[in-house]
Amino acid sequence: MSKTLTTRAEDYAQWYNDLVLRSGLADYSAVRGCMVIKPHGYALWENMRDVLDRMFKDTGHQNAYFPLFVPKSLFEAEEKNAEGFAKECAVVTHYRLKTDPNNKGKLIVDPEAKLEEELVVRPTSEAIIWNTYKGWIQSYRDLPLLINQWANVVRWEMRTRLFLRTAEFLWQEGHTAHATRDEAIEETRKMLDVYATFAEEYMALPVIRGVKTANERFAGAEDTYCIEAMMQDGKALQAGTSHFLGQNFAKAFDVKYLDKNNKQEYVWATSWGVSTRLIGALVMAHSDDSGLILPPRLAPLQVVIVPIYKGDESKPGVDAKCQELMQSMKALGIRVKTDNDDSTRPGWKFAEYELKGVPVRIALGVRDIANNVAEVARRDTKEKMSLSLDGLAETVNKLLTDIQKNMFERAVQFRDERITEVDTWEDFVRILDEKPGFISAHWDGTPETEEKIKELTKATIRCIPLDAVEEVGQCILTGAKSMQRVLFARAY
Amino acid sequence: MSKTLTTRAEDYAQWYNDLVLRSGLADYSAVRGCMVIKPHGYALWENMRDVLDRMFKDTGHQNAYFPLFVPKSLFEAEEKNAEGFAKECAVVTHYRLKTDPNNKGKLIVDPEAKLEEELVVRPTSEAIIWNTYKGWIQSYRDLPLLINQWANVVRWEMRTRLFLRTAEFLWQEGHTAHATRDEAIEETRKMLDVYATFAEEYMALPVIRGVKTANERFAGAEDTYCIEAMMQDGKALQAGTSHFLGQNFAKAFDVKYLDKNNKQEYVWATSWGVSTRLIGALVMAHSDDSGLILPPRLAPLQVVIVPIYKGDESKPGVDAKCQELMQSMKALGIRVKTDNDDSTRPGWKFAEYELKGVPVRIALGVRDIANNVAEVARRDTKEKMSLSLDGLAETVNKLLTDIQKNMFERAVQFRDERITEVDTWEDFVRILDEKPGFISAHWDGTPETEEKIKELTKATIRCIPLDAVEEVGQCILTGAKSMQRVLFARAY
Repeated sequence: MSKTLTTRAEDYAQWYNDLVLRSGLADYSAVRGCMVIKPHGYALWENMRDVLDRMFKDTGHQNAYFPLFVPKSLFEAEEKNAEGFAKECAVVTHYRLKTDPNNKGKLIVDPEAKLEEELVVRPTSEAIIWNTYKGWIQSYRDLPLLINQWANVVRWEMRTRLFLRTAEFLWQEGHTAHATRDEAIEETRKMLDVYATFAEEYMALPVIRGVKTANERFAGAEDTYCIEAMMQDGKALQAGTSHFLGQNFAKAFDVKYLDKNNKQEYVWATSWGVSTRLIGALVMAHSDDSGLILPPRLAPLQVVIVPIYKGDESKPGVDAKCQELMQSMKALGIRVKTDNDDSTRPGWKFAEYELKGVPVRIALGVRDIANNVAEVARRDTKEKMSLSLDGLAETVNKLLTDIQKNMFERAVQFRDERITEVDTWEDFVRILDEKPGFISAHWDGTPETEEKIKELTKATIRCIPLDAVEEVGQCILTGAKSMQRVLFARAY
Repeated sequence: MSKTLTTRAEDYAQWYNDLVLRSGLADYSAVRGCMVIKPHGYALWENMRDVLDRMFKDTGHQNAYFPLFVPKSLFEAEEKNAEGFAKECAVVTHYRLKTDPNNKGKLIVDPEAKLEEELVVRPTSEAIIWNTYKGWIQSYRDLPLLINQWANVVRWEMRTRLFLRTAEFLWQEGHTAHATRDEAIEETRKMLDVYATFAEEYMALPVIRGVKTANERFAGAEDTYCIEAMMQDGKALQAGTSHFLGQNFAKAFDVKYLDKNNKQEYVWATSWGVSTRLIGALVMAHSDDSGLILPPRLAPLQVVIVPIYKGDESKPGVDAKCQELMQSMKALGIRVKTDNDDSTRPGWKFAEYELKGVPVRIALGVRDIANNVAEVARRDTKEKMSLSLDGLAETVNKLLTDIQKNMFERAVQFRDERITEVDTWEDFVRILDEKPGFISAHWDGTPETEEKIKELTKATIRCIPLDAVEEVGQCILTGAKSMQRVLFARAY
């Protein structure tokens, strides 16, 4: 690591960008708003995907794959959904390039290869999927239909940021069909819980489960549930959403089923998704000025062993011990490697693995071996320990569990300290700047007030928490009566 | 299964389509040339992907993800590649839709949202990737760069067929960069071997490794290696390709590295890919008139247990035994389920699992249990056996290995019988129709002759086999001298 990162205190946004680029998570690309996910970032995504995929399958879902393109006429069928996404659609209009007659070696769009109907690059797949479901659902025996898709989607965002907001991103989108309203709502809530469990137990990221206000709802949904997390700069980040779609898509695409009484009924729907945005959340929630701090359960590499040689004659002995230690860890299922690259020095390696967020680093030299110990450094606290080589694999395995736990607890404490109850407009405005975080406050329930507060402060209602208690109060802006507090924050 | 499939003898092409649709592998979609991969098909693809991914990682490759879009100016940089794909490119020209002022509820492309530079939906990613590699490669220390991507690509084909040729398909594409020509060629060959091993050991599909003629080479490659398989109708199918790209892309994108002597040199490249087309190959190579026959190592479900009840009072006993049997198989890692759905009869289930290609079906009834046996049917030969319940899980595990082996051997025998050595033009033309398969014949080595043979017979040179022996002969068309035989066939 030749130069240090911008610190969080200096410039949080710059720190984030520096970190994502320098730790090898992602890179900019030649395509406006699109990024390259580099091997370290993709390995992290693979681990996240594999855990989520297992959770989806354990709750009865199957994967499938639907087309990238949505014909315009299908796209516009569900009016609210179409309206919500129309402004950010990449549109395919032609299917061929040809040689530019005026410019050797260059290509132009062939005007004769214009599509009769334009194709939208999917910003989300409800339209193409519900059009397909029409052919798959006839009777109650075909329900519930529980399908998930891992895919890329495109939303032409004007202002993009690595992982957090990119024109193309990777995600999963679940699309389910049910016989009853209650069953669909149950599914919506179940998948919200799956997301919350994943965020807390794997990402070590505490989240608040809630429901969005009408203003912030998914286009075409009756209700949008969400998990909201807190970043180190006090901004909120929506980490996943689960939508109860009612019968909107079933009606738009005429998807009915024959119920047990031989009656035709419209189907009830849900959709839910998380994306590579989660990587941004992971980085922003846990990392420090030295680099990434990755939770052990998701880290591509959990432990790195760095041999410390003292002259060439020490190499075989140190290498053998490192090898032995590595094998004993692999036997426990630990993701570990030994870095015995001669071309870089141990100090450089230490900084590099710190930057990449490897949870545990072990340094092992001649003197350590003589003393039957190794120097073990944990990434989350930067604490260094001299630990016995006897049973070190088991010790490190426990340490990984401790790190995972500590990261979560630290994030919970940080988050909880940044939830402030506020009862006046003056306090609301002051706290937003003085102590950024979630503000728990009363709101009169109208979209107009929510919009006005956003205009005045850039704060939005992140959610109405599911565990909110009934409490009579007055809206911080209008003073009108309110029955419960909601959570405000400035957000990513 | 309410009606039978079209048989292979009746209409092979129709049999294939019927089978893909009815077995639940895929469905047509509303988008021209694009298909929906249904859960059964996607589960098969996941198994294929997971095996290949492990093989790629074991040979030192890492995954990454590059943008879906390629700006036109990058796309045209490597001239041959651009020329080869220009005719089948989906092109994004606009980034927004707007409400149609003349047609309520409809959308039109917003003419004010025209892109300054058109974006090509990737038909393959050499251009966008090599443009990125430019920033990643400075010195010999950055080489080799061994990266793979799992992604969707789009090629606007005029005539499409489920899995075999679709406008959008899923694939993996490896893109590697090397310091020397020899190392790049070695990589090209290594990955060809990975594909061949995968095809033979997992898909039970024997393949011939060879090199393509200039006519059939990947656009932009110096050499294209391939694996070629034989389908049951005697047509060949290219199952995977591995390209030695020379320095073409390095020169087009100016990717140089500083060698150990401090000299700037262009980098050497390879790329290699297999796609969801492999699913088509799997279906066409093994299946029969009753449905799919899936090789056990890739089958989403390896064993299905069907309980046979005799009155309601028999249910608890039969269910318990099925459950016990299932658990003992799961303990061995077998992918197994029990189908105790009351709404369908055993005979219907038998036909359904035959259609879906489950390698082993076990029927278990009251009398079987009394006799301590189960009826075990293997899908590949349709043989039924009465086997002891003692150690049945182990017996079935061995049976799965036998089935995998038998499928491969059967396919080898089929393929070998359909390789015919031919030395005259008359025989060539006659054999093509009378005994479709590979024809091993002499060719004078010119693109013109190859083209002429294709025109006259629709047969192409599938490859020059890597294990071809030197043998002096005369070109079947021109009579000119030839030093080795090549393989001709009509192909998918």
